[in-house]
Order: sequence, then structure tokens, then C-alpha cells
Amino acid sequence: MSFESPDFRSDISWSTPSAITVFGHDLVDDLVGKVNLGDMGFLELTGRLPTPGESTVFNALTVSLVEHGLTPSAIVTRMTRYGAPESLQSAVAAGLLGLGSTFVGSVEGAARYVQEATLDGDLTKEAAGIVEKFVSAKAIVPGIGHPIHKPLDPRAERLFGLLDEAGLRGPQVTLIREVARQAGDALGKVLPVNVTGAIGAIASRLGIDWRVARGIGVMARAVGLVGHVLEEIRTPTAPAIWREVDEAATRHHG
Amino acid sequence: MSFESPDFRSDISWSTPSAITVFGHDLVDDLVGKVNLGDMGFLELTGRLPTPGESTVFNALTVSLVEHGLTPSAIVTRMTRYGAPESLQSAVAAGLLGLGSTFVGSVEGAARYVQEATLDGDLTKEAAGIVEKFVSAKAIVPGIGHPIHKPLDPRAERLFGLLDEAGLRGPQVTLIREVARQAGDALGKVLPVNVTGAIGAIASRLGIDWRVARGIGVMARAVGLVGHVLEEIRTPTAPAIWREVDEAATRHHG
Amino acid sequence: MSFESPDFRSDISWSTPSAITVFGHDLVDDLVGKVNLGDMGFLELTGRLPTPGESTVFNALTVSLVEHGLTPSAIVTRMTRYGAPESLQSAVAAGLLGLGSTFVGSVEGAARYVQEATLDGDLTKEAAGIVEKFVSAKAIVPGIGHPIHKPLDPRAERLFGLLDEAGLRGPQVTLIREVARQAGDALGKVLPVNVTGAIGAIASRLGIDWRVARGIGVMARAVGLVGHVLEEIRTPTAPAIWREVDEAATRHHG
Amino acid sequence: MSFESPDFRSDISWSTPSAITVFGHDLVDDLVGKVNLGDMGFLELTGRLPTPGESTVFNALTVSLVEHGLTPSAIVTRMTRYGAPESLQSAVAAGLLGLGSTFVGSVEGAARYVQEATLDGDLTKEAAGIVEKFVSAKAIVPGIGHPIHKPLDPRAERLFGLLDEAGLRGPQVTLIREVARQAGDALGKVLPVNVTGAIGAIASRLGIDWRVARGIGVMARAVGLVGHVLEEIRTPTAPAIWREVDEAATRHHG
Repeated sequence: MSFESPDFRSDISWSTPSAITVFGHDLVDDLVGKVNLGDMGFLELTGRLPTPGESTVFNALTVSLVEHGLTPSAIVTRMTRYGAPESLQSAVAAGLLGLGSTFVGSVEGAARYVQEATLDGDLTKEAAGIVEKFVSAKAIVPGIGHPIHKPLDPRAERLFGLLDEAGLRGPQVTLIREVARQAGDALGKVLPVNVTGAIGAIASRLGIDWRVARGIGVMARAVGLVGHVLEEIRTPTAPAIWREVDEAATRHHG
Repeated sequence: MSFESPDFRSDISWSTPSAITVFGHDLVDDLVGKVNLGDMGFLELTGRLPTPGESTVFNALTVSLVEHGLTPSAIVTRMTRYGAPESLQSAVAAGLLGLGSTFVGSVEGAARYVQEATLDGDLTKEAAGIVEKFVSAKAIVPGIGHPIHKPLDPRAERLFGLLDEAGLRGPQVTLIREVARQAGDALGKVLPVNVTGAIGAIASRLGIDWRVARGIGVMARAVGLVGHVLEEIRTPTAPAIWREVDEAATRHHG
Repeated sequence: MSFESPDFRSDISWSTPSAITVFGHDLVDDLVGKVNLGDMGFLELTGRLPTPGESTVFNALTVSLVEHGLTPSAIVTRMTRYGAPESLQSAVAAGLLGLGSTFVGSVEGAARYVQEATLDGDLTKEAAGIVEKFVSAKAIVPGIGHPIHKPLDPRAERLFGLLDEAGLRGPQVTLIREVARQAGDALGKVLPVNVTGAIGAIASRLGIDWRVARGIGVMARAVGLVGHVLEEIRTPTAPAIWREVDEAATRHHG
Repeated sequence: MSFESPDFRSDISWSTPSAITVFGHDLVDDLVGKVNLGDMGFLELTGRLPTPGESTVFNALTVSLVEHGLTPSAIVTRMTRYGAPESLQSAVAAGLLGLGSTFVGSVEGAARYVQEATLDGDLTKEAAGIVEKFVSAKAIVPGIGHPIHKPLDPRAERLFGLLDEAGLRGPQVTLIREVARQAGDALGKVLPVNVTGAIGAIASRLGIDWRVARGIGVMARAVGLVGHVLEEIRTPTAPAIWREVDEAATRHHG
């Protein structure tokens, strides 16, 4: 393919001297002052603006992931800010780099099996197939279980409630609840649908492609990590973390 | 300082098995489903939730920066996605790394001179001092001028209008307009307050510390760059960019 | 685990006011001025200094990956430098983020199947098992094939020759050559061992864990990307790339 | 400028189906197996291969910066690896992002004042001008002073010794030693030339542009950070760091 090919194109946004168009909307007239930041995220992920119910639910998904205190990502952002105080964007970017398979990646995993399932048939049977696939591979079922929050993850339950209130209930939620129940039975544990599982299922309900579902977490944490830069400027933690870690890890030497 | 010091602390968020608290609010009961993603950004940057007027204005600031098409950041995100398709967060983080002094950095520069000015006195004189400082150093005045949008940047004017509608007009806007007017006179050009200047001035009005003002752009672009990953998955541009750039740049050789 | 646990430790390096120790060597007396940068890479990856033959071969692995012109990574580094000229490390880091599964990741894939094979038995049979596994999954065999360099990748052949000259020939190379031959037969194509395959096999011969084998490419490209920052400072390409890409991709609009 | 402009070009590397050329050298015939990784760094930074003496000195510069234990960068790399174990390059890139003004940035600062000085005149007077400039701005003189290593930084002294042994002594070293002496007098402290100052001065002697001098540190730390990924895989520290930091920082809450 070359620049001359009609397939080389972008339909997200374009500008003229007098207007900026974003997914077909005039940025200044139709978006700025009329929609919120979460709505823009929905627009980026689906190509259309959300209905009021979808807006509430999608914003709730992101809000639930903005902040969880001194996570590894927040520690990374703070340590990076210490070394490069002139570069706020580096501190945030460094923190985002840890949003891989261990944490936010499970949003993607959950959204994937929900989207690959047949949703207009026997959901109990679909769930059984999903659980069997992960359990037989001795793999963790994405979106299920939490080290602290059980028997129910309060964030997950809240999100499901909001989806119901918006009249958007769908088989995606029924399916992941059934996956959690059957996985718990298979493993002899209490396994709630956790917040990343709920987000994966609800994102699927909203039509968001599983291949970018973890982007919901990336958007949200970018917002939260800026707050950690600010607190780090005012009450630094990085020098103490460095000192304590270095002393603890090398105390046998030197 | 050590971990034992009372100064080693974070007041952003903490968890118990039953609750997650964020800036003093219960995440599940008070934030999820009640505030939007932009409001969370305001909360991270100021420590408090916005009033309805502040919510509209702050969301507008972020919405205006989410998307501007195939910027250098979007190109970086797409090229990175090509090399590491398994890592959406890397593609977004790479794109954010270009939000330095050339583009979003001017939000910080504008917010800084607005916040360092005396706002309850003679704003014409304050503006003169600001312009003199930059012009005598042969430096660009941050937040002023735009290669395409002139005599007025439509995004800047829209944001100022929203601030007025919310009853939040303040001397910060008067000051930066005066800076633009005087800088234009000094340089013999038409220099509008551009969108980054408007954001710097309005962020100052909202009480956001200039040291994290560019974080507004970082939050916003993180949202937009996820959309570029999605479009790149569906209609790739990176292989063609690679080919065209490599051929053009090395055509004299080999 | 806590900081008090004897398992919380690092044995890479520690300092006293008078000495810095790195993997048991005195940095100033034993390393600086006595070993080269590639030897330090070998030390980091194996915990010991290389023999002269190992030094030649390992340095050659890295040298072969330092530079390949205007790759996607180099373009990313240059675009990032344009947006954040104050932050050389951001430009290099952004470029490294594209070293994922598409390019350097195949070093890891090749090293993995070489290291998981039984090397003291029938290598033809081992190769058949490896090829069967990838072909039946319709997956690309890592380290095999190249769009430009065929029937042989000159960098791969050079590296294998150096290994022989150093008296370090081993079954790892025999195995990957056999994998390439059988994969070519199975797919009816000419598939050379490419440079990433050669590096994966040779790294295995040198005792480098496949889980960090792509680190050889990361070390090497970090060196090369600094050179692209320098050329970009002197003869910029980023503004032209931005303009050409934006115009080509959005020419149907506006 | 457009792709058609003769100014749009890259002279670093280009390929044909049979050869890869790097700064005019045939990669396979002239570089792989003949030069080491540090020599490639010198080539990227100066456009030419080093003499044997320059090779020893430049490799020594990089070797001195590869490893310094559990620095903030190493902690960042380890925390990022914990969240994204599938992405070694992300862990290394995240660690590099902290190589800003606080640490490696001083290489750049030192190289800059050395390169902006007049070196064929009165170096005592040149040094006085440099010290006056920083002291009057109440700024730290880059490359001078160390919290642990004093009165002399052993790495700096070793590097200066190697430069002498290679017959490359020059006014750059005399100047920075004089800067350190005068700065110490002015501030009433013992201020050695530290390792970053020595590297800045020696890089200047070798003809490396100050605008990319911090790249020496970036190259070196990329090598070291891969080793931290490997140790983190084998003996993890990140989960314990997370737990201890979170508990210490939020112990007043919840």
C-alpha cells in the first residue's frame, strides 16, 4: 500500500482553517461544552456519541478505574517524576506501561470470551465451555476473583446496577455471572465477578471491541496518574521509597 | 525521611476490604454513576469535586484536546501498535511521550505566567511585563498564536464563552487576552489566544496548579489515542508510513 | 513477603562510600576501562563476564541489531523528539516501545523453542516437532524467513560464522537450521534463518534465558535510537512526515 | 518541506537486498564481529568509528553508568515488569523515562558549559564565568558534587586516568576540575567532579554534541535495566515493594 491508495485513510478527525471535525461532529459547535470527557472516550471506541444511559454507564466504567491509591503504576509515576520533574507526560506514560496482563489486561480477556460466545442461546452451556477452556489449561479465568473484595466486588455490583437502571441489561452480564459461578464450583472457591470482569462484560454490551477494551483502563488511569504527580510534587514519597528499597534489598551486601 | 515518618503519606485513596475511598469520597457510593470522567480529572487536580459550572468548563477543556487527527502523537501510537500489537498501553504511552514543550507544554507556560501575575491590580501593566519578558528573551509567548486558526482560534473563543456562561469569568482571561494583544502589537502580527493559552488561563481560574496544567492535555490525549489504536487495527496506516518514509529519506543511497 | 524477608534481595549491585560492586566485580577497578559495553550486557544477562570468544560473539549479536535505518522505532523516536525536544530519554523510550512481537519479539520466540528442545538427541525429530506445532496452529515460525534477505540472511550467516570461529558451535544452531529447512519444505517457500532467529539460537548457546532474549535487541536499539535523535536535531524529518501523513490520510475529507 | 525535498533525508543507514550500510560501513563485513557495542554507540554519536584509545575511553564512559543497583529507574523497571510481564521492552522503556534532569541530565549540563567555553584561552577565567553564572542563579553546577563519594568520585577519577593513558588529555578536563575547585570555594564545600561531570567533559573531548550527551547514560542504562528484569523474574521484589509502600503511605487512613 502507498499514500496514493484509497485504503490509506483516517476517518477520525480532519481540519480546515475554520473547522475541526471529529467523527463527523463539529468539535467546537457540537462537542465542546456539550459532552463530557467520558463521552469522548465512548465516541473514540464506538464511532458514535452515547445515549444518556450509555453515557452514565460508560463514564461509570472509567470512574471506577481512575484511582486505587498507591498501585504499582502510581509508584512508577512517582519514581519517574523524581528523576524527570520537567516531564509530567513521561511520569504518566511510565505508569501506564504497567497496565498489562497482570491488572487491566483482564478487562480484555473477559471482553474477549464474552464477545466470542453465542449470546442468543443456552448461556449456561456457553459458560461451561468458557470455564472448561481456562480450567483445563490451568489458566486464571479473566475477570473473576479478587484478593480482597469477596464474596462480591462492590465496584462490579455497582456497575451492573447502573446498567440495569439504564435499561441496558443484556446477556453479556448473565453470561459472566454464570462463568463466575461455575468457575467457583469447579475450583471450590468463592469467585466474584471482579471490577475488570464487569467492565469487560459491560463494554461488550456497549459494543466496544474487545481488542481495545483495556483502553478503558488506560484512559481512566491516565486521569488518575496526573493526580499522583501533583501529590508527589507537594509531599514527595520517591526519595524515601528509593532509600528503603535499596537498603532492604542490598542489606546482605557491602 | 523513612517509611516511619509522618510526612511519608498519601491522601488520595485508600482501601479496606469493604470500601475504597478517593479524596474522602466513597468510590462506589458517591462517585461511580454520579460523576463523569472529567469530574474525576478535576478531583485529581484540585482535591474537590467541581460545581456544575466548573464541571461543564473543565470537561470542555479536556474535550477540546482529545482529538486533532493524525498528529505526531497519533502517528507514534500507530507505529508503536504495529511493532507491539499485544500492548495497547505501550502504544498510548508512546504517543503521550510527545506531549512536551512543543505542543501541550504551552498550556503549562501560559498557566504559569497567569498564576505568577498579580491579578487584582493593573492587568494592562501586568501583561506588558509578561510580554516584555518573553520578547526580550526572543522567546515565543506560550499560549499565543496559531499557524492555521487566526485571527481567532475557534476552540479558545468557545472555551471563554463557556466560562462566561458558567458565571466564572475572571481576571485570568482578561490578562491573557491583553497579553495576546500586546504581543501582537510588539511583533507586528495577528496573534490570537490559542487553545492551549485559553486552557492555561481557564485552568488557572479553576485553581489548577500550573505545574500540572499540562496534565489536562495528557488526560485528554490518552482518551483520543485509544481511538487511533482501534482505527489502526481496522485500517492500518503504519506499514505504508514506514515504506514511504524510508524510501523518501534514503532514496539518495543504495 | 516483606522487606524483612531474606528472599527480598538484589544481588546485582551494591555500594559503600568507597566502592561500587557489580555482580561481584569492583566497578572501578575491574570493569571500567577493562570490559566493553557489550560485555556488560553479557554480565547482566548471565551473571558472569564473557570469555574472549563469547565477548566477540555477544557483541556481534548486539551490533547486528543496533541500526536498520528508518524503522518504525526510528520514526517514533524522531516524532517524539519533535514534540518533546527537552527529553532525549523520552524519544528513545518511545522508540523502544515498538520492539514487541512484530520485530524483536521473534528473538524470544526462537530462543524459547531452542531452549525447550532436547538438544542431545535426534535434532531432525526435534525440529519436526517444532515445525508441526507452529504450522498446525497456522502460526509463523519465529526466527525464520525475511521479506528482503533470501535465500540467506547475510547477518544470520555472519553470526553463525563468528560462533564457529570462536569454537562455540553447538546443537542450537543445527536445530534452528533444521527448523528453517523443514518449515520451508512444509510451506513450499525458501525460508532462511533470519537475524532474529540466529540471535535466538546463539543466545541459547551462550546460556541466556529466553525470557530476556529480546533484551539483546532492546539494548542494541537503545544505542541506535540515540543516533536518530542526533540526526533529527541536525536535519529534521518529523515536520515533513507529519504533513505528508496527515494530508494523505485525510485528503478525502475537509 | 516535503518528501520531495532534497533536505528530507537520512544518512545513517540504508539497505539493498544484498547489503546493509551503516554510516558508510558495510554492516556485515565491516562491523559485525569487528567492533563492539560501545563502538557502535560512538559511531552513532560522532558518525565515525573510534580509534583504539577512543574505543577504550568511550566504552569506559558507558560501562561506568550501566549499573548502580536499585536506583529509581531499576525500581520502575521492576514494578512495570510486574504489571506487564509480557513486555520486556516496556519495563526497560519505563525505567529510562526517569533519566531526566535529576540524574543523567547533569551529563548534558556539564557537556554544555564545557562546549560553550573558549578552551584555548585562560581556563581559570572561563571556570570563574561558569561558576558565577550558576551560583548567581542559585542553581546547582552540573557535574559537580556527590552525596556519597567525596572528596573524589572514584568513577570520575578512573575515567580521567583512562583518558590520560589513551593520550587524549585535553582542556575539557582541566576546565571542569577548575570549575569544581572554584565552585567548592564559592560554596565552602568539598565538591568533586562527579561521574556525570567527568562523562560530560570527556564526551566533549571526544567530539560528542552536548545535546545528545545524556544519550550515553540512556544507552548504558538500557543495558543494565535488562538485567533487572531478569533478576525480577527469578526473585521478585515488586509485590513486596507495592505492599510496603501502600501500607506505609496510607497507614493513617482506613
